[in-house]
Amino acid sequence: MFIDTLIDKIKEKNNPSVVGLDPKIEYVPSFIKEEMFNKYGRNLKGVSEAILTFNKYIIDAVYDIVPAIKPQLAYYEMYGLEGMRVFAETCKYAKQKGLLVIADGKRNDIGSTAEAYSAAYLGKTLIDEGISEPVFDVDALTVNPFLGIDGIKPFITDCINYGKGIFVIVKTSNKSSGQFQDVLTMESKSMYEVVARYVEEWGQYVKGKYGYSSVGAVVGATYPNQAKILRKILKSSYILVPGYGAQGGTARDVAHSFNYDGLGAIVNASRSIMCAYKSEQWKDTYSEEKFYEASRAEAIRMRDDINNAVNGSKI
Amino acid sequence: MFIDTLIDKIKEKNNPSVVGLDPKIEYVPSFIKEEMFNKYGRNLKGVSEAILTFNKYIIDAVYDIVPAIKPQLAYYEMYGLEGMRVFAETCKYAKQKGLLVIADGKRNDIGSTAEAYSAAYLGKTLIDEGISEPVFDVDALTVNPFLGIDGIKPFITDCINYGKGIFVIVKTSNKSSGQFQDVLTMESKSMYEVVARYVEEWGQYVKGKYGYSSVGAVVGATYPNQAKILRKILKSSYILVPGYGAQGGTARDVAHSFNYDGLGAIVNASRSIMCAYKSEQWKDTYSEEKFYEASRAEAIRMRDDINNAVNGSKI
Repeated sequence: MFIDTLIDKIKEKNNPSVVGLDPKIEYVPSFIKEEMFNKYGRNLKGVSEAILTFNKYIIDAVYDIVPAIKPQLAYYEMYGLEGMRVFAETCKYAKQKGLLVIADGKRNDIGSTAEAYSAAYLGKTLIDEGISEPVFDVDALTVNPFLGIDGIKPFITDCINYGKGIFVIVKTSNKSSGQFQDVLTMESKSMYEVVARYVEEWGQYVKGKYGYSSVGAVVGATYPNQAKILRKILKSSYILVPGYGAQGGTARDVAHSFNYDGLGAIVNASRSIMCAYKSEQWKDTYSEEKFYEASRAEAIRMRDDINNAVNGSKI
Repeated sequence: MFIDTLIDKIKEKNNPSVVGLDPKIEYVPSFIKEEMFNKYGRNLKGVSEAILTFNKYIIDAVYDIVPAIKPQLAYYEMYGLEGMRVFAETCKYAKQKGLLVIADGKRNDIGSTAEAYSAAYLGKTLIDEGISEPVFDVDALTVNPFLGIDGIKPFITDCINYGKGIFVIVKTSNKSSGQFQDVLTMESKSMYEVVARYVEEWGQYVKGKYGYSSVGAVVGATYPNQAKILRKILKSSYILVPGYGAQGGTARDVAHSFNYDGLGAIVNASRSIMCAYKSEQWKDTYSEEKFYEASRAEAIRMRDDINNAVNGSKI
């Protein structure tokens, strides 16, 4: 079951954080880019190979200290078919290294179509009578709830059948997230609270041994006050927290998404880990050639920063 | 500009409908499946080749009578990398036949990530300084507004820069769409009205010669009463109407999404066209080998059915 494995890995590594792999070509060190451009050309194939190499370096540098990676599908789709191949290979490589893979795709559609998305990422695709195959086969997928339960149920079915997980977006980290998510309803509730109540309800079907559910929620680090409210509503949901680091969320901000047991949330950082070698903090210690050591140093700093804030706030 | 080209094609073909290409393998006639399974194996490659052949037959059968096709990304992602290749080849083939391509992906994310999605489908992807390439390069994409304007703006920018379009989901055709979309706000408005007001506002930046905008909306045929309200709010938005046919929406239902000028909406049908050869209406007239002739007959019937209802309701 996804949520139990996630929590086991978080405990084992004492690290409630996840490395986001959203690799823009601008993030990739020149020596990798030039090698791949020379080998494959200055085109989508060359870029994709550069990104795959970059991803593998980062995975090698952090796999023993983090429980999971979170590749963002948009950053693979943007490189076309080669990009999607690199997405698949990145997921495979990370799984071989014992990492969980949370694909960030925010997929959503009506029920019959959500079934197709779920087959692509969580379940299996029908080939012919009696023959099905897993496709991208990640451990969890982010989904968008705007179409209601019809569009969520197929994912939950695959969570049950294949031991997978989903994270439903509830309150996103971006500036304009309030435009619809904060709208006040007739009952003086915000839309994000309405969504959260349903997410908590949907999760009852996939609860694991720790009392948490494989139906999680996404709540941005940039909204700590809303996180406090949502932590109470989402009693059995794990919260995936984007927005730490480059987007401005601090460890104190993310601490609100954790429970008193020190569990209940996993914090993502993408750019601050991938581009650590360019940061004020690390650029004098690590050369561009050792960018992956900077990523590891930043992943450790982040882990300790979050653990300190979570433990501090729960004393 | 997308919206002008769309309207020109609708007028030229006197047909405000679009053929959805959501090809499940169960829809593909046995003779195609068996040929491709024999050639490539009973696997994701074989399925994908069968679907590509099926799509090309349907495109060949309807390209002179419909303005556009709408491939649903989920049904290509579910067949993995081969599926995505077939998506790309289907789009290319349709464009060569003079059809517009509306990719149904309901993509959504924070601004920086929405930029990546937009590069993948509407704009161009940066390869290296000074080098960019179009990727899937469709004419329009459906998007989900749940993250607010931050996540929509990058798509609008590419609509402006590359003459593309988007359709923002406002009121979807599925049963549970009301769970969040119908929630009443403090001001006694439904969420779908709140969303629609923003969509209308966002569209002001991309208006074409007919007064319509390249920022359209998705409003399901299964909610005719809501469509009446939304048609008034969405003054300059074209409405993409799913839910006609297999999902239960009738021509009278979809007529509410049109304006008095006979424009303002384009109606999608997927299953009823793709599987016309299996339907009560056509199965006695067309054999499975002539499935594409059934699709053409159904596309013509649908065109006339909608035109009659629209013209009738506007007299």
